Amino acid sequence: MEIKFEPIGIIHSPYTKLHGMPIQPSAARGVEGRVEVDKKYIPALSDLEGFSHIYLLYHFHLAKSHQLKVIPFLDDQERGLFATRAPKRPNPIGLSVVKLIRVDINILHVENIDVIDGTSLLDIKPFVSEMEAVKDLRIGWLEKHISKISSQLSDKRFK
Amino acid sequence: MEIKFEPIGIIHSPYTKLHGMPIQPSAARGVEGRVEVDKKYIPALSDLEGFSHIYLLYHFHLAKSHQLKVIPFLDDQERGLFATRAPKRPNPIGLSVVKLIRVDINILHVENIDVIDGTSLLDIKPFVSEMEAVKDLRIGWLEKHISKISSQLSDKRFK
Repeated sequence: MEIKFEPIGIIHSPYTKLHGMPIQPSAARGVEGRVEVDKKYIPALSDLEGFSHIYLLYHFHLAKSHQLKVIPFLDDQERGLFATRAPKRPNPIGLSVVKLIRVDINILHVENIDVIDGTSLLDIKPFVSEMEAVKDLRIGWLEKHISKISSQLSDKRFK
Repeated sequence: MEIKFEPIGIIHSPYTKLHGMPIQPSAARGVEGRVEVDKKYIPALSDLEGFSHIYLLYHFHLAKSHQLKVIPFLDDQERGLFATRAPKRPNPIGLSVVKLIRVDINILHVENIDVIDGTSLLDIKPFVSEMEAVKDLRIGWLEKHISKISSQLSDKRFK
């Protein structure tokens, strides 16, 4: 069974190459980006500006194949792909929570963007922490690398 | 440009019809589900069990078309689609944070499942709140409905 999606817009960021790019929003604090949504979806952007944070779902277009095990940026051991956020996934969908600064018609001005320039946008959802029933969080192999999460940048390993 | 994805597994839940289904994980606390991942991806599930919570990305397969404005379950006014989590989206991708109880080879036993039985799974990612740089959260139109978030169930409006 094949599921077909079409980009609903394009994400612009200061990052034009993978090397040195932040690998998650917490390492990209303050980095500004622009999400250009296809004009036919303007009505669907109403009420979005009330939310301070939104999920962007996008296509990891540079990931041409997938790996089942990867050495993540934050570790020096191989880990199961689904226990990481590495981009070379069977369905290369990226997920980032960004800060929404303002909406100009069809342009979303955002901060904390950890996405390469020119990435295809698939969906936008409001971030509402009350919707996720998260209590007693454990973060597995990442626990011992927690201090690096806000500083680790990308290299070329997933190119 | 068309982007093609294939299911990597199937989500099983107690919900076989939309009516009465919880609409987010916080309204499904304790509800058990089973995520059956295609056996070829077993190596990619290593290290996942260390995480207490995971994101499931899935296909809203019942959504046959999209709407630009919707009256969300939690409101009585029309809102822009992207300011809601309603399923009839241009790219009908669903996102839920569930509690991971255990991994049995290729079966993930989860709780807080708010997904209809038989839903196609697209991706699994670890939930790591330190990765999202969320401070000073505002939740727009949902603010005044916050007390309903953990109890609101589905009806047939998005069928």
